[in-house]
Amino acid sequence: MLNKDKKILIVGLGLIGGSYAQALKREGFYVGAVTRSQSSIDYALSHGFIDTGSTEVSAESVGGYDLVVFALYPNVLLKWLETNQGLLKQGALLTDVTGVKSCVVYKVQAMLRSDLEFVGAHPMAGREVYGVRNADCSIFRGANYIVTPTDANTPAAIADIEELGRVLGFARISRLSPERHDEMIGFLSQLTHCIAVALMTCRDVEHMSAYSGDSFRDLTRIARINEDMWSELFLLNSDVLVNQIDIFVSQMLGIRDAVACGDVEKLRELMKLSTSRRALFDK
Amino acid sequence: MLNKDKKILIVGLGLIGGSYAQALKREGFYVGAVTRSQSSIDYALSHGFIDTGSTEVSAESVGGYDLVVFALYPNVLLKWLETNQGLLKQGALLTDVTGVKSCVVYKVQAMLRSDLEFVGAHPMAGREVYGVRNADCSIFRGANYIVTPTDANTPAAIADIEELGRVLGFARISRLSPERHDEMIGFLSQLTHCIAVALMTCRDVEHMSAYSGDSFRDLTRIARINEDMWSELFLLNSDVLVNQIDIFVSQMLGIRDAVACGDVEKLRELMKLSTSRRALFDK
Repeated sequence: MLNKDKKILIVGLGLIGGSYAQALKREGFYVGAVTRSQSSIDYALSHGFIDTGSTEVSAESVGGYDLVVFALYPNVLLKWLETNQGLLKQGALLTDVTGVKSCVVYKVQAMLRSDLEFVGAHPMAGREVYGVRNADCSIFRGANYIVTPTDANTPAAIADIEELGRVLGFARISRLSPERHDEMIGFLSQLTHCIAVALMTCRDVEHMSAYSGDSFRDLTRIARINEDMWSELFLLNSDVLVNQIDIFVSQMLGIRDAVACGDVEKLRELMKLSTSRRALFDK
Repeated sequence: MLNKDKKILIVGLGLIGGSYAQALKREGFYVGAVTRSQSSIDYALSHGFIDTGSTEVSAESVGGYDLVVFALYPNVLLKWLETNQGLLKQGALLTDVTGVKSCVVYKVQAMLRSDLEFVGAHPMAGREVYGVRNADCSIFRGANYIVTPTDANTPAAIADIEELGRVLGFARISRLSPERHDEMIGFLSQLTHCIAVALMTCRDVEHMSAYSGDSFRDLTRIARINEDMWSELFLLNSDVLVNQIDIFVSQMLGIRDAVACGDVEKLRELMKLSTSRRALFDK
């Protein structure tokens, strides 16, 4: 049970880790943090996001927590656990926030001490700004939170990580296998970021801002993108993403050909289907 | 000079025509309308958008106006003028609201009575709903308005149509040749609508709304699309649009290949360029 006696450690005080800390402190949990920069710790302490924090990973700084949230890039998370899992509390529950799952969850579960349990989770929230100074737990409101359990997980641990999503304020908590998650996110999130980047870089746009309407702004909002994080996420899900790009490009070329040969009926049919499907997302 | 003595006729009381009428009445102009449906006239009269309106095109209903705004689909506009331009007032100034220009402006100017003058304009505003019942002139606030004069136009008429954009409340008034306009709009608006439709129709999405984040919603907001209007706009600008799709798809395939072969440097470079360029559109 994720009750208020549980002490929670955030590993990595960035935008997401900081927002987790802020939300959990508000809910009355004891929250500790380890992160690389002392100034992030200082900021989080002075803003009441955490009870304690350290830039050192030691038995003292990480060994007293029942729940550990890794708010790190996937590859950093794997290395952290390799090096430091011996320091974690007996029986601790672990989770993460990364946007790819198959390549993280199974590796973590395979390397983990037998008394620890890891349940992957993906909080589908973010901003175009970074760092704990931009942390703001209101980004979770109305957003989706996906838990990705495997056969290695216990019902109790899965329930705790789902409860964490509720405590953080997410609107919808769902459960997907790591594979289904990655396939879905390859389409809904990674492909859309590829599109935004392609649109922003495929031709000269320097002189265009005076002529753009809302549509171009909408499609490129996410073109302000953290290149380190997203290039890593893309490559960790590359088979899925390449497939989603191929499916999308094939549809674009179908529209291209309909435009080129004046096939107004095909264009209208596609637009009608598009309109009716989009309604599902406005609920 | 576009002063308050000028009487303005709106031809076509849809979302845009209705919003023009509403804005112009508020500014104190005398506004008349002709449109196909009596219920649209009744709505506009009862909401104070117009002073008078008719479903009949006659010397009485269209012959007394100094400025005539055609808020019609491009092909309907051309037919209307062919049939009815003889009824318009001597020396009247004409403009339109259509999203494609080369194929409209030159044809109109070539067929026009020598005492009439037509200056094309594109109000870059719209909504995902239609009809005069959704008219709302606040959609012009913060939006762009592009005037597309040609050698056939006089400085005084161009100035009047630019002034019309200011009176309507547009934030930015620009001037482009019809060809430059269509090239710009092919990229900024038509290509983005193609992308939204392709994204919404390229695979099954029925079960996905529980997992989508803001990015997918942003990229598909315009996937609710008026199939009659947009298929016509696409085909009237087909050479430009096909070219823009090809440029965009080629960039998508470049990203695809970088993902497929793990070229993290190329991905980071593209994302950095994307981020810096996007900043231009946030001003």
